[in-house]
Amino acid sequence: MKLRQKERNDMEDIVYGRNAVLELLASDPEKIEKIYTQFNTGHHKLKEILITARRSRVPVGKARLEKLGEIAGSTKHQGVCALISTIRYYQLEEVLQTPRNTNPLIVILPGLNDPHNVGAIIRTAEAVAADAVILIEGRGAPVNAAVHKASAGAASHMRLCKVRSLAACLKTFRERGFQVIAADMRAEKNYTEIDLKLPSVLVMGSEGRGLGQESREQFDCLVRIPMAGCVESLNVSVSAGVLLYEAMRQRLG
Amino acid sequence: MKLRQKERNDMEDIVYGRNAVLELLASDPEKIEKIYTQFNTGHHKLKEILITARRSRVPVGKARLEKLGEIAGSTKHQGVCALISTIRYYQLEEVLQTPRNTNPLIVILPGLNDPHNVGAIIRTAEAVAADAVILIEGRGAPVNAAVHKASAGAASHMRLCKVRSLAACLKTFRERGFQVIAADMRAEKNYTEIDLKLPSVLVMGSEGRGLGQESREQFDCLVRIPMAGCVESLNVSVSAGVLLYEAMRQRLG
Repeated sequence: MKLRQKERNDMEDIVYGRNAVLELLASDPEKIEKIYTQFNTGHHKLKEILITARRSRVPVGKARLEKLGEIAGSTKHQGVCALISTIRYYQLEEVLQTPRNTNPLIVILPGLNDPHNVGAIIRTAEAVAADAVILIEGRGAPVNAAVHKASAGAASHMRLCKVRSLAACLKTFRERGFQVIAADMRAEKNYTEIDLKLPSVLVMGSEGRGLGQESREQFDCLVRIPMAGCVESLNVSVSAGVLLYEAMRQRLG
Repeated sequence: MKLRQKERNDMEDIVYGRNAVLELLASDPEKIEKIYTQFNTGHHKLKEILITARRSRVPVGKARLEKLGEIAGSTKHQGVCALISTIRYYQLEEVLQTPRNTNPLIVILPGLNDPHNVGAIIRTAEAVAADAVILIEGRGAPVNAAVHKASAGAASHMRLCKVRSLAACLKTFRERGFQVIAADMRAEKNYTEIDLKLPSVLVMGSEGRGLGQESREQFDCLVRIPMAGCVESLNVSVSAGVLLYEAMRQRLG
């Protein structure tokens, strides 16, 4: 496969041009973090790209000509660029087979949009030697250069997984004896009251929206981070830090 | 004083024009968060502004003509704009006289440059009902719209102070019986080993640089947040969250 490719940095490559992106969608759609294209150009190949991307659950963003030129670093993008990840994503099974901890600690980010938050959480997860950070395909920020930078390099050390379905992933963990925990401001239990020494999965809700009602039922345990002042919630990367370090505090005894 | 002023939002106003900025520097320099100007224009009033700003310890940033136009929202800025804060800063004495907690908890940010971090820390400080967040004049990010947004509104609730000298401020606290604590990765004591129920001042070092050697001697206690993985430190707003919530955990018993 001949790709017109421009190396950005160690976390992100760019493929551009209609045929190149179509070929990549056919051969390795899971490698594509995001496609940027103009919409409504009427060009049949761009339409085909949109249809194939949707079928393969690759996120697509709208971008103007100048923006595409910036992303591609070239004017020859023909209206489409694909951000491809050079990260090696781990399979869930690999993480479960070769855990870092006797009682593993997993973080799931089901749809965080701010690369600073995603990066800071990966950094904290690595700091407490968590086993993996799991992202959901097609939801949330791509693991790009901004995430890598915000993670202070931790994105190269922490095992990252990408799964198709949050529900299926939680089911797998539950079958393997993990407790599935999520932070929710309406929960009754304080986060310090649960036993985080057990094999645990922490699910961090999205910025602003928190957890949806439907997903709330998927958790074994909702915990509250107490709020004493005039704010209702913390920045999500701070919440993750508070929970992960409570786990570490309990585990260090 | 006639000011050409454009209201931005509830946290930030702009004053522009050489005479307007000079007048403001003469009358209320403490209200100015930052001055933006072109350097090396040779204009005598701009030189005077630079000299007066330095004498009054008002931070000055370099900006091109187009940038100045954006900040001012006008082309009539004559090469200089001042960001003025509409925040009511508290006096240290006010905070000490009317504490929010019997054993107060204070956060000092001696030079954080990222508004996301400053905002997230103010938000967390408010979440644990800390007594005040203290900034040092002329060091770190101005408390502007970006800080306000990142604080999710907490900057309007939390008592903010601005002091001239970190050393003098720490001396005042020490005289009033506070313990002065800073996080340092080389410290021997784990952060969970100190009694945070006592009246405490937490000093958060700057991003990347951490604490300088000279300042290290100003603290009663250096604490380490343990790092188990391949990273050396946390994002500073995550560190602050871990420490402030450890204080809350201890205080809630």
